[in-house]
Amino acid sequence: MSILIKNVNVITMNKNKDIIEDGVVVVEDNLIVDVGDRSLISKYLDSEIIDGEDGILIPGMVNAHTHASMVVFRSLGDDVSDRLQKYIFPLEKNLVDKQLVYAGAKYAVAEMLLGGVTTFADMYYFEDEVAKAVQEAGMRAVLGETVVNFPAPDSNEPYGGLEYSKWFVEKWKESELITPAIAPHAPYTNSEESLKKVLEISEKYDVPILMHVAEMKYEFEEYVKKYDMTPTAYLDSIGMLNKRLIGAHFIHVTDEDLKILKMREVGISHNVGANSKGGKGTAPAVEMYKYGLKIGLGTDGAMSGNTLDIMTQMALVGKVHKLVNEDRTLFPASEILEMATMGGARALSMDAEIGSIEIGKKADLVIVETKSINMQPVYDYYSVLVYSANPSNVDTVMVNGKILVKNKSIKSLDMSDVTYQLREIKEKIQNFNV
Amino acid sequence: MSILIKNVNVITMNKNKDIIEDGVVVVEDNLIVDVGDRSLISKYLDSEIIDGEDGILIPGMVNAHTHASMVVFRSLGDDVSDRLQKYIFPLEKNLVDKQLVYAGAKYAVAEMLLGGVTTFADMYYFEDEVAKAVQEAGMRAVLGETVVNFPAPDSNEPYGGLEYSKWFVEKWKESELITPAIAPHAPYTNSEESLKKVLEISEKYDVPILMHVAEMKYEFEEYVKKYDMTPTAYLDSIGMLNKRLIGAHFIHVTDEDLKILKMREVGISHNVGANSKGGKGTAPAVEMYKYGLKIGLGTDGAMSGNTLDIMTQMALVGKVHKLVNEDRTLFPASEILEMATMGGARALSMDAEIGSIEIGKKADLVIVETKSINMQPVYDYYSVLVYSANPSNVDTVMVNGKILVKNKSIKSLDMSDVTYQLREIKEKIQNFNV
Ligand SMILES: [Zn+2]
Ligand SMILES: [Zn+2]
Repeated sequence: MSILIKNVNVITMNKNKDIIEDGVVVVEDNLIVDVGDRSLISKYLDSEIIDGEDGILIPGMVNAHTHASMVVFRSLGDDVSDRLQKYIFPLEKNLVDKQLVYAGAKYAVAEMLLGGVTTFADMYYFEDEVAKAVQEAGMRAVLGETVVNFPAPDSNEPYGGLEYSKWFVEKWKESELITPAIAPHAPYTNSEESLKKVLEISEKYDVPILMHVAEMKYEFEEYVKKYDMTPTAYLDSIGMLNKRLIGAHFIHVTDEDLKILKMREVGISHNVGANSKGGKGTAPAVEMYKYGLKIGLGTDGAMSGNTLDIMTQMALVGKVHKLVNEDRTLFPASEILEMATMGGARALSMDAEIGSIEIGKKADLVIVETKSINMQPVYDYYSVLVYSANPSNVDTVMVNGKILVKNKSIKSLDMSDVTYQLREIKEKIQNFNV
Repeated sequence: MSILIKNVNVITMNKNKDIIEDGVVVVEDNLIVDVGDRSLISKYLDSEIIDGEDGILIPGMVNAHTHASMVVFRSLGDDVSDRLQKYIFPLEKNLVDKQLVYAGAKYAVAEMLLGGVTTFADMYYFEDEVAKAVQEAGMRAVLGETVVNFPAPDSNEPYGGLEYSKWFVEKWKESELITPAIAPHAPYTNSEESLKKVLEISEKYDVPILMHVAEMKYEFEEYVKKYDMTPTAYLDSIGMLNKRLIGAHFIHVTDEDLKILKMREVGISHNVGANSKGGKGTAPAVEMYKYGLKIGLGTDGAMSGNTLDIMTQMALVGKVHKLVNEDRTLFPASEILEMATMGGARALSMDAEIGSIEIGKKADLVIVETKSINMQPVYDYYSVLVYSANPSNVDTVMVNGKILVKNKSIKSLDMSDVTYQLREIKEKIQNFNV
């Protein structure tokens, strides 16, 4: 049976950025089969009806870079210097196990869905546990096991993620909603040999590579000193830059780097919240967007972000880039919503399937209500979505044709066991001295 | 009868920044009469009980600069250049009347209360209408009629606000919750003669002055060219800088200006959201705070901000200043919450009465729930309040001992007539071509 969504203002994010006020969208199985005005209602009389109550219907948002399970560490280590080495790595080394990864992922998946995120890209340890949580929820995700040059939670030896990845990719290769990937942590935490092995696995199985690139000032300086190349140019020199790569950050890049990224069709996750809170600098997202790069938005982990929704990132994109460039006309709200939806889909090479509300696309849809006090008046839908809304305004979320959130509640996951597990994990963390 | 708030983690914002986990606060009439741990419960057995359900109790937040009624224009004119002259002034000239100001203020007051703001400073036209809405709601506010060098909604002659102010101040001088003020729009929209008249009124009635200062680059350049003085130094030269002045923005200031502001005990509203979205630059809030200036946070009007809560501003303060200074340790979350509460109280010269949870202070209190998915885990209360929370997490709001918001609903205002009036105003706006 089909589902018909009515009484919504449809922000299609198609090529013309068409908006259909008082529009209708029809879903059959996992696909959008019709998009139009009220007159469609009489064509689909047998449908199950969802009344959007004058809300705004948008394509599901894409979180193009996160570490979902790290939500268990949220509110720890903010405002601390050299946090990665002094705080995150020791915490992870001592506390991260399968149970933590699973419980954290389940919590994070619920938070993302409740905030209107329908697809996310994740890199962490024990990604099989993340995959289980994602599958239970019925969400869409690209999941990559971390490969790093030191002993990690998933392996006593450096680069244990390489073997794990082969097993993990084999296991999930045929999944409908999960795209397995491989995730070298960063250029500066992987040897050239390791990166070449990553490349081999990616090519052999035709799976994406997720990696932090050009995030750190010291990383940029180190590569220039050692190789006389930027981190981006270095990666290109060893063949790592290609359509399958989704790089997070790209803060420290030259104009020449942008040309290479364009030529190699690399996907980019712009993580403005994490980058600004970390004092790391501003990626040239204005130039990236104008130049037609595949750029989406990401939250990074909840120790950086600190929330996992994309709405919070949208408001920040506008403010940070207008501020940095001292130009209030830059990044109009419609372009920001595009990055949050189609841009993310492009970055993950999923734009043929998701990212817009068009006939034939997968039914990943979000209704944002307009009844809450912060949501009125509505003169410009894009402005309301980017600057007025917060994740609590997300009312209904559909992924692949299934309703996962309704009336602001998660339908597809039982959260009671997670709450209990998180309490146990919290005790362990509180007894651990960094 | 007293009210006892229990099962809350009390963030006092007193001098030692004491935190009382599982704490208790007791209110009698409009005052906080006791603050302590659970053992207090047995001392106040006759009290009405509010169960905070493990939420976080904070002092009511202060919005130190806004134009409440402009909420009716929210989502109009974003991303447009030279918006003030091309958009805001024409809209206001043609559409702003008493009815619009009253309806807008009522809506804005409800939005602020629902977001945990208990005190705000406002400058607009027909402030008597704002005062009526504030009084109806039972909120605390400093309200100043705008004085400007062109015909305005409240007067066909320039500077009509001067006469209005005298009448307005006389009318509200004895109010318990409303502090009437006078509000010259900015140095560059007032003659020296007008500013001197403002000063006279302020001194005669002992009321605050609200003014935009050093917001615009052209303003700074004009004053340097014309007077060989910064806008701040110019205002000091004519006697405008004193304890009664609450200046909004102060983006374009020199180190010398900061010394003057300190010496004259000027109140400052730092409006980071409006300033960044407007591409206007970043006020040196880090230096201002360290230097001990009276600095609070403001949203500015909803055409700039775009929401009227202070939580959204808190998250931005951290991100913007860490980014601009490339230092993740700057502005720890506890300092940001201080600016949102005690800092705002100091800026408005109300710090003897509000801004912290201490015996003898006015009972302006906010419970932020910790049940929503974005609010867990809680390792650091300040970090959770600044980086995890959004205004939808505000559960209960008390002003002057009265509960105005409970279970996330406004208790003290009937919003149905406002909704109707806003619909009428929307039609007028839609039929008006800027
Ligand atoms: Zn990351
Ligand atoms: Zn203003």
